[in-house]
Amino acid sequence: MPELRKDPVLGRWVIIATERAKRPDQFAGKPQEGPLEEPCPFCENNEPRTPPEIYAIRPKHTPSNGPGWELRVVPSIAPFLRIEGELERRGEGLFDLMNGIGAHEIVIETNQHIANMADLSEEQIAKVITCYIDRTIDLEKDKRFKYVLVFKNYGWSAGGGRVKHSRSQLIATPVNPKRVKEELVGARQYYDYHERCIFCDLIKQEIASKDRVILDIDGFIAVTPFAARFPFEVWILPKKHSCDFTSMDMAARYSLSCILKKTLAKLKKGLNDPPYNYVLHSAPFRRQKVGYWKSIDYDYHWHIEIIPRLTRVAGFEWGTGFYICPLPPEDAAKFLREVEV
Amino acid sequence: MPELRKDPVLGRWVIIATERAKRPDQFAGKPQEGPLEEPCPFCENNEPRTPPEIYAIRPKHTPSNGPGWELRVVPSIAPFLRIEGELERRGEGLFDLMNGIGAHEIVIETNQHIANMADLSEEQIAKVITCYIDRTIDLEKDKRFKYVLVFKNYGWSAGGGRVKHSRSQLIATPVNPKRVKEELVGARQYYDYHERCIFCDLIKQEIASKDRVILDIDGFIAVTPFAARFPFEVWILPKKHSCDFTSMDMAARYSLSCILKKTLAKLKKGLNDPPYNYVLHSAPFRRQKVGYWKSIDYDYHWHIEIIPRLTRVAGFEWGTGFYICPLPPEDAAKFLREVEV
Repeated sequence: MPELRKDPVLGRWVIIATERAKRPDQFAGKPQEGPLEEPCPFCENNEPRTPPEIYAIRPKHTPSNGPGWELRVVPSIAPFLRIEGELERRGEGLFDLMNGIGAHEIVIETNQHIANMADLSEEQIAKVITCYIDRTIDLEKDKRFKYVLVFKNYGWSAGGGRVKHSRSQLIATPVNPKRVKEELVGARQYYDYHERCIFCDLIKQEIASKDRVILDIDGFIAVTPFAARFPFEVWILPKKHSCDFTSMDMAARYSLSCILKKTLAKLKKGLNDPPYNYVLHSAPFRRQKVGYWKSIDYDYHWHIEIIPRLTRVAGFEWGTGFYICPLPPEDAAKFLREVEV
Repeated sequence: MPELRKDPVLGRWVIIATERAKRPDQFAGKPQEGPLEEPCPFCENNEPRTPPEIYAIRPKHTPSNGPGWELRVVPSIAPFLRIEGELERRGEGLFDLMNGIGAHEIVIETNQHIANMADLSEEQIAKVITCYIDRTIDLEKDKRFKYVLVFKNYGWSAGGGRVKHSRSQLIATPVNPKRVKEELVGARQYYDYHERCIFCDLIKQEIASKDRVILDIDGFIAVTPFAARFPFEVWILPKKHSCDFTSMDMAARYSLSCILKKTLAKLKKGLNDPPYNYVLHSAPFRRQKVGYWKSIDYDYHWHIEIIPRLTRVAGFEWGTGFYICPLPPEDAAKFLREVEV
């Protein structure tokens, strides 16, 4: 059983992931890319190579776990957190821990052997977004969970695995992640002072200055953040205020799909298919939004952060939480604006 | 001129490091290791290949910037922050920024072409520690600076460069880094409640349980932290309470040198010479310790964090601030205890 352990000084939770545990000596040396897994377990007709599906977009006449699907969600075969059991929060002297309960799901985004989401159609990416929404709403019903993070690891340096088939992941956690709390607190402080959403203000300022805007289409913008941590870091934000991405209607899902595809295609073409991560930051589950977070409907604003993995993170970053970005985000935005896709 | 920019939501500072800026298209593709720089600019007799020395341990009869030294400190040739100028804190709409003023120094730890600090003698490592202390005390005199981070990047995956010569770095910053503030706040909250230092309590608990102790020698312990972020993460802590590493006497410096060398040697032998980072966390400068931080002499405890770079950091970690550690720290400690050096 994996464990969730809390750093007693920083309050940072860590998953001690026993399900992926290796022997200590297996970590020796430099991290290296392993061989490709073949045949691809995520391609159509290879369904028996995955655990049974939790969710699928497929015609009614096709049976579960058989071919004919357009998108499937399966549990991770090496989950960071386990779905069965109780949290059993407890202490060990000054340490706090609980069982590693959660959900860890893999979204297989296409039945074709396509590696990069940039190469999926807008229609297909809209289905992926619908799947994120449906799965998040379903996971919210489990009272043990406080948050779902939707994210993607593309390419080996970005934590991608040995299968070159476009997919993303959802992890439901029984605690609110530190980073998410910090965003909520920061956004609320601004709201308390100005009575306006900081993200809405930020979007207005970015559109007015134009320097960091890459794309501005149909209710969404893609910008490089003013205090970018990484070269070519890109945020995609809805212009219309909303704390919760699950409230998107079908038209908004399609618009998001278009700007996401275009942004990923610009990164692929302009930067020679770099490894990247993205994360979707939305408000914690509805029941968290009363009480302490009661203003969250006004002061938080969901968004996607895309991080191409082009540089290494070294001691200074680990030691300080400071980041060093070797490219002004204005130069990155200009470069990406000019990449034609 | 590099800029320090603040993320308006998270309050996280970022250095936009123009001195190391590349053209946008030079970032294309995967990060890759470049060729070695030869001849090594850090070896004895190659002093003209570095900027003039700021500090050296050398016999009195040897001239500055000539051979005969045991340790040298030179400014970085591509500094993240610049020493000349004023901060000029200012706003741009809702964004905050200032000039990238600071110091960035390279500590050349030996005149021999030795790559890993694990292979230096205890006497030589004690000189490196003395140098950290002397340089920190000197940088503290500059009223523009609030913190000095001492750190090391060893090996390419850890951010090390194209020179295989043992060195570490000091960066003085005009703002207190987020991570350091979080440690100070966490330690003070514990102190306010218990009237005891959390690190002192943690050391007592670790020594009693033994599960995570790797070495316990002469006033210092090396342990794997309970909520380790990374496999084989190791913290070295002085058993005697002190918030400030510059207060170490000569005997303590030598003891620290012995446990640091032994720990690094165990990592090298047990894990096949892995890349690693270490960071030294000490209290902010003395003048910060009055007022808001007035209790810091009691509630903070300096220490070194060593992070072997054996795994990749992926989307989940960037998105949540959660870490996933695939090896229980108890197993890592047992393994390292048994490596004979």
